Amino acid sequence: MFQKVLVANRGEIAVRIIQTLRELAIASVAIYSEADAESLHVQLADEAVCVGGAAVQSSYLNRQNILNAAILTGADAIHPGFGFLAENASFAELCAACQITFIGPRAATIELMGNKANAREFMRQAAVPVIPGSDGFIETLAQAQAVATTIGYPLLLKAAAGGGGKGIRRVDRATDLAPQFVAAQEEAELTFGDRQMYIEKVLTNAKHIEVQVFRDHTGQTVAFPERDCSAQRHHQKVLEESPCILLAAAKRQQLQQLARQATIAMDYLNTGTLEFLMDQQQHFYFMEMNTRIQVEHPVTEMVTGIDLIREQILVAAGVALSFRQADIQIRGHAIECRLNAEDPLHDFMPSAGTIDYLYWPLGGLGTRIDSGVYAGSVLPPFYDSMIAKLITFSPTREQAIKKMARLLQELVIRGVTTTQQFEQALLTDPEYLAGTLTTNALSQRFLPQWLAQQKLGDERHAAI
Amino acid sequence: MFQKVLVANRGEIAVRIIQTLRELAIASVAIYSEADAESLHVQLADEAVCVGGAAVQSSYLNRQNILNAAILTGADAIHPGFGFLAENASFAELCAACQITFIGPRAATIELMGNKANAREFMRQAAVPVIPGSDGFIETLAQAQAVATTIGYPLLLKAAAGGGGKGIRRVDRATDLAPQFVAAQEEAELTFGDRQMYIEKVLTNAKHIEVQVFRDHTGQTVAFPERDCSAQRHHQKVLEESPCILLAAAKRQQLQQLARQATIAMDYLNTGTLEFLMDQQQHFYFMEMNTRIQVEHPVTEMVTGIDLIREQILVAAGVALSFRQADIQIRGHAIECRLNAEDPLHDFMPSAGTIDYLYWPLGGLGTRIDSGVYAGSVLPPFYDSMIAKLITFSPTREQAIKKMARLLQELVIRGVTTTQQFEQALLTDPEYLAGTLTTNALSQRFLPQWLAQQKLGDERHAAI
Repeated sequence: MFQKVLVANRGEIAVRIIQTLRELAIASVAIYSEADAESLHVQLADEAVCVGGAAVQSSYLNRQNILNAAILTGADAIHPGFGFLAENASFAELCAACQITFIGPRAATIELMGNKANAREFMRQAAVPVIPGSDGFIETLAQAQAVATTIGYPLLLKAAAGGGGKGIRRVDRATDLAPQFVAAQEEAELTFGDRQMYIEKVLTNAKHIEVQVFRDHTGQTVAFPERDCSAQRHHQKVLEESPCILLAAAKRQQLQQLARQATIAMDYLNTGTLEFLMDQQQHFYFMEMNTRIQVEHPVTEMVTGIDLIREQILVAAGVALSFRQADIQIRGHAIECRLNAEDPLHDFMPSAGTIDYLYWPLGGLGTRIDSGVYAGSVLPPFYDSMIAKLITFSPTREQAIKKMARLLQELVIRGVTTTQQFEQALLTDPEYLAGTLTTNALSQRFLPQWLAQQKLGDERHAAI
Repeated sequence: MFQKVLVANRGEIAVRIIQTLRELAIASVAIYSEADAESLHVQLADEAVCVGGAAVQSSYLNRQNILNAAILTGADAIHPGFGFLAENASFAELCAACQITFIGPRAATIELMGNKANAREFMRQAAVPVIPGSDGFIETLAQAQAVATTIGYPLLLKAAAGGGGKGIRRVDRATDLAPQFVAAQEEAELTFGDRQMYIEKVLTNAKHIEVQVFRDHTGQTVAFPERDCSAQRHHQKVLEESPCILLAAAKRQQLQQLARQATIAMDYLNTGTLEFLMDQQQHFYFMEMNTRIQVEHPVTEMVTGIDLIREQILVAAGVALSFRQADIQIRGHAIECRLNAEDPLHDFMPSAGTIDYLYWPLGGLGTRIDSGVYAGSVLPPFYDSMIAKLITFSPTREQAIKKMARLLQELVIRGVTTTQQFEQALLTDPEYLAGTLTTNALSQRFLPQWLAQQKLGDERHAAI
């Protein structure tokens, strides 16, 4: 077992990992930027090392300084969390070269899934359905036109080196294809240093459904019940839940079987998530794979009772998975609400500042708050704006929603603006309550409606 | 279903009930004393009524004012929580006379179990083993001497109207019986207005094991997995857990069967707990029954996934239990740690004052904090000193203990003295870790040891 693990991250996920290390009696090393010296993860870890300035390039993405910190503190493994270096294959290789265990899949797997066109092609060959589009790379306009003729419009031009919502252009008509393709290719080269493109048909009214998988060195492979992450604002998840209430048990098994099959095909190690779109006929189409733990992992933990961070650390240390597919049961319904320090009335502009007062809505069965802040925390403007995840778990979805509404009602946070009210409103949306939200519903329908209501409220208030 | 429920309590349990009412879409009415105007339960409830002055007799025990508050606010039920009026049969009768539902068992049951000699006699007749001792009341010294000759010494003289650790005298030798009996009888008359006594043999090296039961108006009767509450300081529980790791499954079933049988025999309604002593041969002896929800109910909730407060409200409203005996599964191990505002170095003297800073150890799977305070709370000196319950749940007891140790390590509370350090130490006690603590171990062994160590630490510190 590891004696000491360096956590190459900050905020909520760093806290989550440090807490789990403590429960495993493994010493923890936090890293931090100059802007994060007073951060919660620094205060909770057994040791902490400053790895650079406020800018992520100089600190949380500074591979050399992070490796030096690991070597100097005698850490025998690095947990990358999510974001930053979590899906950086060359960092995983560097760790291996320094004889430090990278807690995640093999570097080759990270690289394979990191190139979205390759990942798509790999899945296609593994008999996992992908969104209709190109086979492998597109390098010329003629190739793009041939694909477009086959699949029709609208379609998405995507940079192979992109991912996570970046490097995407939508084309609605044939006449737009040529100029958009040329521009997209130039942009891809500028942004990612790679001209390779691929094409996907736009699936309208689709849900985002994802499946977390786990595989250990003995080849034991499991797939968890799906998460429904359709509540998104501009490709950023807002509320996540598990399971998806629209899926029948047989459909769920079929999806899990698909995910397991892909996981085995790539000889995956440790945990990861396959993201799918699901159309209204409940066909699944692979989008991309995240070769790391995800923000929304707590809903799966609550539903199954399995501690995914703990298993991630143990599997990386060579311990076999503590459970099998048959042990994974759906024990209820879980919802996660991401609380961001952003102003929903001003295009979700990040809100930096000091948390002057904080009352967490604690208590009762089936509540959980994973957070990276405390009363007095200073939120630097340089990083992700997520400050906490509120999670509820109940026997039914309806009860879990009511519990979440209760938490959001009780929460008091002063000094920074958060998404609290926006999310309170979302919990009352009829489409959300019905479980039928699709990925574009928030941006296209709910958010404009809500903003109009807020404006109306302001005007009424002003008129009084 | 109820439209509005008055919560006749304060602190953590009032908060717990108000939160559950909100999740059930039932309006809540808090009551408070003049000293509690700024309390958390007052702030969280939909309405709040001041029912009297700081002294409990004028507020939280003021039956007339509480009933008036219920009538004035239009509450159709009263949840008494624990303590205060929760086991007051005449209050339950008054509620019924006002056509307000008392959320608890029938008044006759509260009365039957409230008289500890009657409760003992009832259980004996229901074939539930009781601690060797008198059959029913003892009224004369001759009767006491006859019982003492049969069961031997040491023994306990107990006031029938006592309970919860009150009205008890220990007699170690035959020569002490006569003077002690006379004095005890006088004391009982003075304290409880009732001279009736009963006698129990002292069971040494016993564990406190209790079984929560539930019964609805259809007669559906269930018993939960036992709680081990042996970690006590002067009859006050400190740490509770479920299940008791010493019990084999067959033994557990036998105990649950006993508890169900007693519950059915008294035609019980709603929830309650039968408390037993368990000797080293794992024989169970009924001690007393609490006809209400208990402080330690969260460990049972965590282990089974059943929300006991929710069920309590629903059953009181005439809804049948949502589960059956077969649905009650042990899904892991749960521990509760009572955080009291008391100074363990000064005989656990209550510590009143203002909570200046508060950092709750949030986060991760299987953690829960039920609390009645917030940063800025003023703790009045008039009430119970419990300010929070930390609860952990894990697949194994070992993991649950490590998780609790992590929570206690992270917790920061300034402005009042708490039991935090004492409990941190207890979690490292070999006998606690082995699960073999008996009810007198803390007072007789652990606490003196710990106090000596603290003193030694102070002296070392002073010598530097």
